[in-house]
Amino acid sequence: MKKIYNPDKTTWLEVLKRPTQTVADIENTVLNVFDKVKSEGDIAINEFTQKFDGVLLDEILVSVEEIEEAKNIISEELKEAIGLAKSNIETFHAAQKTSKISVETVDGVSCWQEKRPIQKVGLYIPGGTAPLFSTILMLAIPANLAGCQEIVLCSPPNKEGKINPAILYTANLCGVTKICKVGGIQAVAGMTFGTKSIPQVYKIFGPGNQFVTVAKQLATKFGVAIDMPAGPSELLVVADDNANAAFVASDLLSQAEHGKDSQVIMVTTSKKMIDGVEQEIEKQLEILPRKDIARIAIENSKLIYVENDELALDLINEYGPEHFIVCVKNEDFYINNIANAGSVFIGDYTPESAGDYASGTNHTLPTNGYAKQYSGVNLDSFMKSMTFQKISAKGIQNIGTAIELMAEAEGLQAHKNAVTLRLESLKKG
Amino acid sequence: MKKIYNPDKTTWLEVLKRPTQTVADIENTVLNVFDKVKSEGDIAINEFTQKFDGVLLDEILVSVEEIEEAKNIISEELKEAIGLAKSNIETFHAAQKTSKISVETVDGVSCWQEKRPIQKVGLYIPGGTAPLFSTILMLAIPANLAGCQEIVLCSPPNKEGKINPAILYTANLCGVTKICKVGGIQAVAGMTFGTKSIPQVYKIFGPGNQFVTVAKQLATKFGVAIDMPAGPSELLVVADDNANAAFVASDLLSQAEHGKDSQVIMVTTSKKMIDGVEQEIEKQLEILPRKDIARIAIENSKLIYVENDELALDLINEYGPEHFIVCVKNEDFYINNIANAGSVFIGDYTPESAGDYASGTNHTLPTNGYAKQYSGVNLDSFMKSMTFQKISAKGIQNIGTAIELMAEAEGLQAHKNAVTLRLESLKKG
Repeated sequence: MKKIYNPDKTTWLEVLKRPTQTVADIENTVLNVFDKVKSEGDIAINEFTQKFDGVLLDEILVSVEEIEEAKNIISEELKEAIGLAKSNIETFHAAQKTSKISVETVDGVSCWQEKRPIQKVGLYIPGGTAPLFSTILMLAIPANLAGCQEIVLCSPPNKEGKINPAILYTANLCGVTKICKVGGIQAVAGMTFGTKSIPQVYKIFGPGNQFVTVAKQLATKFGVAIDMPAGPSELLVVADDNANAAFVASDLLSQAEHGKDSQVIMVTTSKKMIDGVEQEIEKQLEILPRKDIARIAIENSKLIYVENDELALDLINEYGPEHFIVCVKNEDFYINNIANAGSVFIGDYTPESAGDYASGTNHTLPTNGYAKQYSGVNLDSFMKSMTFQKISAKGIQNIGTAIELMAEAEGLQAHKNAVTLRLESLKKG
Repeated sequence: MKKIYNPDKTTWLEVLKRPTQTVADIENTVLNVFDKVKSEGDIAINEFTQKFDGVLLDEILVSVEEIEEAKNIISEELKEAIGLAKSNIETFHAAQKTSKISVETVDGVSCWQEKRPIQKVGLYIPGGTAPLFSTILMLAIPANLAGCQEIVLCSPPNKEGKINPAILYTANLCGVTKICKVGGIQAVAGMTFGTKSIPQVYKIFGPGNQFVTVAKQLATKFGVAIDMPAGPSELLVVADDNANAAFVASDLLSQAEHGKDSQVIMVTTSKKMIDGVEQEIEKQLEILPRKDIARIAIENSKLIYVENDELALDLINEYGPEHFIVCVKNEDFYINNIANAGSVFIGDYTPESAGDYASGTNHTLPTNGYAKQYSGVNLDSFMKSMTFQKISAKGIQNIGTAIELMAEAEGLQAHKNAVTLRLESLKKG
């Protein structure tokens, strides 16, 4: 672990630097897959699944029988846990519903804003050893609340041509309309262009490896939107003398186990806390099954001491952490003044894993500093806002002259004329 | 004009096809400018301004004196018109403020969502013959309402090194914090990397030519967000027998004068209206100063007859128009069921130019079919939503077991451990 004491402001950019990823070499692979899926549809999908996942599928869509089978495999206690998480996530996201905003800006000029669902959305869920069924909760629940008509889920099959039962169970529970056995670049390409089996969607959500990340970027060139740019997951804890070093260490480690490139930072006004957390990490790390991954992330992690809360806050806002844990006595100072963070976890009993699974907040969050300008996934991510206006004869008489003057000043005579014609017809009338 | 009667559903994609733009050849130019601005800052900015705008500047920032001068040049009546537009836009966008959403999902688990401003934003305003000061109203007013700290505006200087006074006047009126004399690719590069004169920003808004469009796309690779993908402006009118052919024609023409590639479509259930609008267009076109541009756009425009409102609606939702004008008796049918449109204009006295300037709605809207998944610019475009959670000892006891079970099922032991440690400490306590 890197221990840094009182870094000078001029060094902050360097201290807070994230590892950079190079993707140029992946782009050609992604382009080739896109081309082939676009021209050959399901035939190309099946070829790539055979090549990358090692299985030749008869059928891309998951069947009703497979979903029934999954329901029988999942234990009752896991079903209950998923049910509790679902209920909390639903409660929090349903509260985000906004009503129509309606204003008469001047007499006779009515303007309103309404949100309507994105009709077709796609969710990507990675396969592999860890089946991320929790991410289905985070994406399918708000998609359903928003009223999306088509909710497509793609996830790669294993060598037996199956998808993990926890994924199937959760997808079915949360109202996914179609589950496709397809992963990686070809899944993103399939949802971008549409094939016989895979519906075309307007927006693609969800995590993935470097290939999926580059594929999602490329999809935006073909008119598809994506949830947000991706990057390695990251956590920043601010702690003072009152923090519990064991708890802080456990949170840092829960982030570190995600991957070797995970970002783990503690900022503290307490030198004692640096030593305490370091010792706790060593102790807890030993018993983790994923300790090899976590150790590499922890080696690159930073424990930063600063003189006071104001400096700590500036440093944290400069970084813009995806997950931000506040374990200090004066927590309101950080809550009120944090400008850039994805999700904030407050106090001793709010581990990051609570937000990952079951508190109710969303775990799909801006990383890589994108908290400065992007929201985490929320109900609005599955809707778009549209505006409406209705102007009466009186209304156009109230604002018509202003429009004529401005249109003329911008050199747009036909814009002016559309108003002039109407004003003249009203004079005649 | 292309008149199309009862197009078969299988031909809709072809009928509604937008002109495609190729940008590959522009990309290298854009990359070179970005490289140079990144490494040389203001020196490169000044070189490109000399090369592309034909003027060597002493100072990139607009001075207080230049703003005072602009205030004296603008006529009182244009100032009043801008003042009315500003008031309406402020009223409508201020109404979009959302309050903190707070929920206790289960006993002891508090979750809330708050929106906080994007601290630094950049606005790009094109130069040329038509000074688009109205776009400053549409971008700077919500930026200010949102609470953005730094609002940078870039616009190219003319050959005398000046920016149009209407732009300077409006920018100053709407609280822009810095106005930079820089246009095109170099402006976007400047706001992406920051130079001595041009502040680095987190999100870039505003229209531009093909070079600016590609530059904004490239900026997203360097961690900057943009308002939305760009495309030629477009308008779709739905009209029945009751519509006023002269008004409809004037709206189609106001769109057509934007550019040769503007998209203009009328969908109607009235064959009479097709002939009436065609005649009116010919009549009104003749007297337009920009008739050469408008004529080319009109030649590519489409007047589409369909049998009934249901078919018309399906066709319109398939297209997803940027601007959608509803001139029919049964207007509620379209208002309630339109799924994909940027902004909707209802009735005989609601020309598109009202929304372009002064009704109060925003004119920065998704085009090119992006209304299917993107919002037009609104107050939220200048903010990001952040979530917070605070869990009590009771709260973690209520959801802890569920988190442990789910983390274990996903193979993430450290996530589980962060909860287990806390639960155990509470048992001991």
